[in-house]
Amino acid sequence: MRILVIGANGQIGRMVVEKLKESEHDPVAMVRKEAQAEALHEQGIKTVIGDLEKDFSHAFEDIDLVLFTAGSGAKTGADKTILIDQEGAMESIDLAKAHGVKHFVMVSGMGVEKAREADDAMRPYMHAKFRADEHLKASGVPYTILRPGRLTNDDGKGSVDFYEYEGETRYGEVPRADVASVLIEIINAKPENKLYYLIGGDTPVAEIL
Amino acid sequence: MRILVIGANGQIGRMVVEKLKESEHDPVAMVRKEAQAEALHEQGIKTVIGDLEKDFSHAFEDIDLVLFTAGSGAKTGADKTILIDQEGAMESIDLAKAHGVKHFVMVSGMGVEKAREADDAMRPYMHAKFRADEHLKASGVPYTILRPGRLTNDDGKGSVDFYEYEGETRYGEVPRADVASVLIEIINAKPENKLYYLIGGDTPVAEIL
Repeated sequence: MRILVIGANGQIGRMVVEKLKESEHDPVAMVRKEAQAEALHEQGIKTVIGDLEKDFSHAFEDIDLVLFTAGSGAKTGADKTILIDQEGAMESIDLAKAHGVKHFVMVSGMGVEKAREADDAMRPYMHAKFRADEHLKASGVPYTILRPGRLTNDDGKGSVDFYEYEGETRYGEVPRADVASVLIEIINAKPENKLYYLIGGDTPVAEIL
Repeated sequence: MRILVIGANGQIGRMVVEKLKESEHDPVAMVRKEAQAEALHEQGIKTVIGDLEKDFSHAFEDIDLVLFTAGSGAKTGADKTILIDQEGAMESIDLAKAHGVKHFVMVSGMGVEKAREADDAMRPYMHAKFRADEHLKASGVPYTILRPGRLTNDDGKGSVDFYEYEGETRYGEVPRADVASVLIEIINAKPENKLYYLIGGDTPVAEIL
């Protein structure tokens, strides 16, 4: 499959692209800046330049699956939360639909379904991510949404707690490296119109699906 | 009709409540602060205290029609754009639906359908308002959306240019006083599932519907 990775310069994005490069898939890393693209090129990774705030429709040509793992990050304000986390994601979904993309994998966040209860600092972000998830669910594009717990930079453990939401959320942490491994499993299995939660746990990643 | 006016302390909100008080309708002004409620009480206006960022479901008891004319205003940041203009509006729509409200009138803004093309300063607000409008359209609650042009504090002219969107937007200004008069016409006629644009013009307000 030809896979567009949106947010390929992020921590999780970079790990996923690395793994996809070693697989049978054909990843295309979407990044915002020329310098980011050059660095990835040097590692033998295909890239496309695209800015979520502008027209990035060219990135969707001949794409089978989209992975959205972009984020405005903690250093920018709530304007970027709207423009990137919400609107960048929604535009990606609309473009995936317009281009006949067969599957959309969204990296969301744990607890976004209870955004109104989040603390002040996190609430705008939680709302934005929730609205993007809702937009994907309503889009008609086959999707998998992954809501990981608090991300850490710990080494990957190779095992996780991965579950479908059934009214109760188990909160916890999970290393980004394990999130990346889980995303590879999702990309391979393409579970259709599913919403999963992810924290650290004891189920081997190879057995989650 | 019992009409909940959300944003009753805003400039347009206050004008609409004044007009409704003189009509056969029964307006309830929702405001955030006790002091605002007291000032309205002294003018003989029914009030309910409700904060769009908290639980304000109590305001929807026995309400026939909701008018949403709240706004976070130009002095606050994009966090409030998400929390008030987008999420406050969406929660109002969800509560209207849950309480069987028969009609929802939304004060939106001209050009929100082209939010991606708006200038940097306005873009988050335009996106937020557009998403709220889309949420209303998809809600199943009978609605009228009004998208006025740039608002001024000029005296009302009593005539306007009021039209349904047919692919082309005529931009312009409109006095808040005329927006308030148009809202009264909309509340009386309750045009179902309609999206109107409004700028200054020569059609008498009494003839727009």
